[in-house]
Amino acid sequence: MKPIQLIPVEGMPEIVRASDLAALICGAVAESGGQIEHHDVLVVTQKIVSKAEGAMAQVDPEDPLSHKPLVEQESVRILRRRGDLIISETRHGFVCANAGIDLSNVARGQAALLPVDPDRSARRIRDGIKGLIGVEVAVVISDTFGRPWRRGVTDVAIGAAGILPVLDLRGTQDTYGRELQVTEVAIVDEIAGAAELVMGKSTGIPVAIVRGVDETAFQLGGSRVGVAENLVRSPQEDLFR
Amino acid sequence: MKPIQLIPVEGMPEIVRASDLAALICGAVAESGGQIEHHDVLVVTQKIVSKAEGAMAQVDPEDPLSHKPLVEQESVRILRRRGDLIISETRHGFVCANAGIDLSNVARGQAALLPVDPDRSARRIRDGIKGLIGVEVAVVISDTFGRPWRRGVTDVAIGAAGILPVLDLRGTQDTYGRELQVTEVAIVDEIAGAAELVMGKSTGIPVAIVRGVDETAFQLGGSRVGVAENLVRSPQEDLFR
Repeated sequence: MKPIQLIPVEGMPEIVRASDLAALICGAVAESGGQIEHHDVLVVTQKIVSKAEGAMAQVDPEDPLSHKPLVEQESVRILRRRGDLIISETRHGFVCANAGIDLSNVARGQAALLPVDPDRSARRIRDGIKGLIGVEVAVVISDTFGRPWRRGVTDVAIGAAGILPVLDLRGTQDTYGRELQVTEVAIVDEIAGAAELVMGKSTGIPVAIVRGVDETAFQLGGSRVGVAENLVRSPQEDLFR
Repeated sequence: MKPIQLIPVEGMPEIVRASDLAALICGAVAESGGQIEHHDVLVVTQKIVSKAEGAMAQVDPEDPLSHKPLVEQESVRILRRRGDLIISETRHGFVCANAGIDLSNVARGQAALLPVDPDRSARRIRDGIKGLIGVEVAVVISDTFGRPWRRGVTDVAIGAAGILPVLDLRGTQDTYGRELQVTEVAIVDEIAGAAELVMGKSTGIPVAIVRGVDETAFQLGGSRVGVAENLVRSPQEDLFR
């Protein structure tokens, strides 16, 4: 295997509705003296995608719970409640706290919702970069989710383009020549979490480049396997829904 | 933030009971022309730790289910069963499939159990490396877990030494000067998942170096905050146990 580099993209401007993320990312990378390369994976946080797409809502800045009705509205199923915390399933199929709605790194009086179709958001950025600089990249949209049983949050993928969300190793052998038991690796989640390590939560770095991901993961030729259909476990398969 | 490098450690020999992992890792890195640096995080897969510590059991190679009694024996609580699949809680507090027991990348007729105390395993490797080459590293022991709601597996941390499993950002402000809502980041899980990207499942690479992790994460001075006490959510806090 080759080494992988995780490179923070510094210097992104404040994102507003209709900001052209592809152009701003290309600009920030060029400005910092870097370069976007073929087969780079660009990890872009949900927050700036929601801002650019206008997936925002007004909330009462004096009332810390005024976004709770939005949580119900953005959920198709409530799994658990405890105090003010709601764990629910979004219409994309994601299970997370507060339907992915949050108030950090947005202006006072606003809440960021999840993008309507994060796979489409990823494709749009990918296609935009290809159009602007002619380079084939993959794009992962990341968000910060908790999980049961383990404390703390990690960044995971909520959308992807140009990369297989799940690497299927069926038929692959282990080092003893036997078929692997664990056959599906959620590489986009590992990539999103890796990128978080160079973004932080308070540094204002909403984009990172992951360079050197194994080429078998890429699906640059336009195939449209996204996170929503490929990474979300169907309720029938799921033992915890 | 600085860039981070994920570097696979090639050339590790087959690990057997009482193998000196610290010495073998130092040897493999030197052999490949590399160097272990101050503040590197070494990610070591559970499989070679279990082999080195003799955390193995005999199973009937003709019976694909002969490790199931071991799963019950290694579990303190069964959460779900479906067919042959058991989701249970180990005595460490980890919730995973088959109590973390698996048959891949071990000799026929054997099953690898989880190490008795993976935090201690991590400390031992860390202390070993410090003793051998005088370099202060952090060590993360990784394993491959599934998760509810999302398909595919990712590598997560089951033990750590020299690094805070969870980065506590309480009191930190977002880019708008407001207190962050999301305050605890499970960086060792992000590091373990990142390392998987340069290990693969069938390449025989059981160790990776993660270089450039933010220095605030390190606790090199002997503090003993491990994964078992710091990353496992207590059943009282947990909504899904």
